[in-house]
Amino acid sequence: MLDFFTIRTVTWEDGAVKMIDQTILPRRLVYRSYTKHQDVADAIKRMVIRGAPAIGVAAAMGVALAAMRSRATTKEALMRELEGAATLLRSTRPTAVNLAWGVQRVLDRAKEAGTVAQAREAVVAEARRMEDEDVEVNRRLGKVGADLIENGDTILTQCNAGALATVGYGTALGVVRAAKEQGKLVKVVVPETRPALQGSRLTAFELARDGIDCTLIADTAVGYTIGNGRIDKVIVGADRITRDGYVFNKIGTYQIAVLAARHGVPFHPAAPYSTFDKAHVHDQVVIEERAADEVAKVRGRRIAPKGVPVSNPAFDSTPPELVTSIVSDRGLIEQPIPENIARVIS
Amino acid sequence: MLDFFTIRTVTWEDGAVKMIDQTILPRRLVYRSYTKHQDVADAIKRMVIRGAPAIGVAAAMGVALAAMRSRATTKEALMRELEGAATLLRSTRPTAVNLAWGVQRVLDRAKEAGTVAQAREAVVAEARRMEDEDVEVNRRLGKVGADLIENGDTILTQCNAGALATVGYGTALGVVRAAKEQGKLVKVVVPETRPALQGSRLTAFELARDGIDCTLIADTAVGYTIGNGRIDKVIVGADRITRDGYVFNKIGTYQIAVLAARHGVPFHPAAPYSTFDKAHVHDQVVIEERAADEVAKVRGRRIAPKGVPVSNPAFDSTPPELVTSIVSDRGLIEQPIPENIARVIS
Repeated sequence: MLDFFTIRTVTWEDGAVKMIDQTILPRRLVYRSYTKHQDVADAIKRMVIRGAPAIGVAAAMGVALAAMRSRATTKEALMRELEGAATLLRSTRPTAVNLAWGVQRVLDRAKEAGTVAQAREAVVAEARRMEDEDVEVNRRLGKVGADLIENGDTILTQCNAGALATVGYGTALGVVRAAKEQGKLVKVVVPETRPALQGSRLTAFELARDGIDCTLIADTAVGYTIGNGRIDKVIVGADRITRDGYVFNKIGTYQIAVLAARHGVPFHPAAPYSTFDKAHVHDQVVIEERAADEVAKVRGRRIAPKGVPVSNPAFDSTPPELVTSIVSDRGLIEQPIPENIARVIS
Repeated sequence: MLDFFTIRTVTWEDGAVKMIDQTILPRRLVYRSYTKHQDVADAIKRMVIRGAPAIGVAAAMGVALAAMRSRATTKEALMRELEGAATLLRSTRPTAVNLAWGVQRVLDRAKEAGTVAQAREAVVAEARRMEDEDVEVNRRLGKVGADLIENGDTILTQCNAGALATVGYGTALGVVRAAKEQGKLVKVVVPETRPALQGSRLTAFELARDGIDCTLIADTAVGYTIGNGRIDKVIVGADRITRDGYVFNKIGTYQIAVLAARHGVPFHPAAPYSTFDKAHVHDQVVIEERAADEVAKVRGRRIAPKGVPVSNPAFDSTPPELVTSIVSDRGLIEQPIPENIARVIS
């Protein structure tokens, strides 16, 4: 039996990037292995792998594949190739900041290296280091968040901010796992999270595998469930947190935050330092608009009349006044959020 | 080409109840014809027909079928049979008050009749009268609501409160149709409305057929869409409005109302007088809990791990403080809502 406390969503193996294909979960657990950065870019775009921390590491590994396959004989030629790979990988999904962060981190190592061979080696080593670091960071973050959880709490989450959204352990679900490791009983309520159904397909899957109590609801039932006093805390992941304290996360998060505030339920985004965007404020962030068919079809079956116009934003943003505190691997970021982001995330 | 301005969702034809099978829309438009009240009850339960006004009329027609088929020779025996049919029909769905209202109305006609033959005739005549009345009532209601609509408005609705939720014309979508008939340009934003997808399957279908501009969104995108100032008014149907002013409607309505209030967008339920429950207050209403598979599957395909617990409430309630005004066929019911319900709905 798999245990998502330890399984890795993406890993470097024998010079290839190996990842769980999340498009076919929960039906089957299948791994894909890629040796070209173009294929990694395509996998990120098609959401074979998704989740801000996971795609950050996958993109870094994509650059590492480009470095390994390069036939460049000069440092300049290699850097041009790596920059090309980086541009492609960054373009796959515009909202999560971890993607740009992961790519930049390996590019920086290449730049610092003296020779072509050293640069190649440094990029691969850094990508592998990021893989290991991601799990450690999530475990640290989990411990910070677990202190907020009381025995018997019912937690509402959104989408999948679990092991499958990271290399392992998870951010929001990392908090749940850490609370469980502390011996606390925790229940999780999971909205299915249309259109891509990461709640029902991924979060319910990994919680069930780990034996954590979970109840699935339709996205329409969030207000009813919070309004009836069934939720003690909301804990969600994040794809980008801007320096003015806006939390960009999976579409549907904002309305959950509004409902939590109305009913006095604490709302905690959980995110590693790589999710913080110290360079931008919220209105500079591009919200990815995805294909109409994600809404007009479910798992390939049409559910709406042909040709009906669709609006399909993949993310929304929650303003800092709706955030109780942010759980990060560098400690709890409390109100006033923007000032404390600047203080905690150097 | 069909025109939902005139098509009937349910009609009495040659001694049978004929209805559009809404479970297979928008793929195909198929009619079902029933001659036994048990089959009508089953059709209501399985949501072959749904929408509070539509099931009110269908249930009345169910009692009429029982009256026609009865071999009772005394008034008492007939009434016992009709009461039995009424009990079965009422039990199909507990939340919409129109169901009980429709059944009671034909039972009252039977009671008043002198002979068995007269009672049979009276029940059938009353059910047919209710069919015609429903369309007239919706047209009246539509005119009341259309006065609220400005040229160019974008309206967010929920579920299907259209022609398909009534005998014809619709309640919330009746308002849209009436505004269009007044020459106003109106756009409609339609959340898909999981789990049963009445938004994408039914509302998008009937608006497209009538040439009304409509955009489909996932239920998770409601907060984003309202928050970005794209919505001028919210107009929804209702399954029951209690005398203390709580609006019971399709699950997801409450969270839309909360978001509308936060962003200063007027929120208008639209309902005929038969939807008002003068006997009860909100905490006496049973919220129907439907099958787990509605959430764990979409159109028969499993999207969640087997055995995952599901909570699937079919309705929620919106408190009167979130309601701007209620559009009814007896005029606009403004704040204070509970007092004005008592005044307007005698």
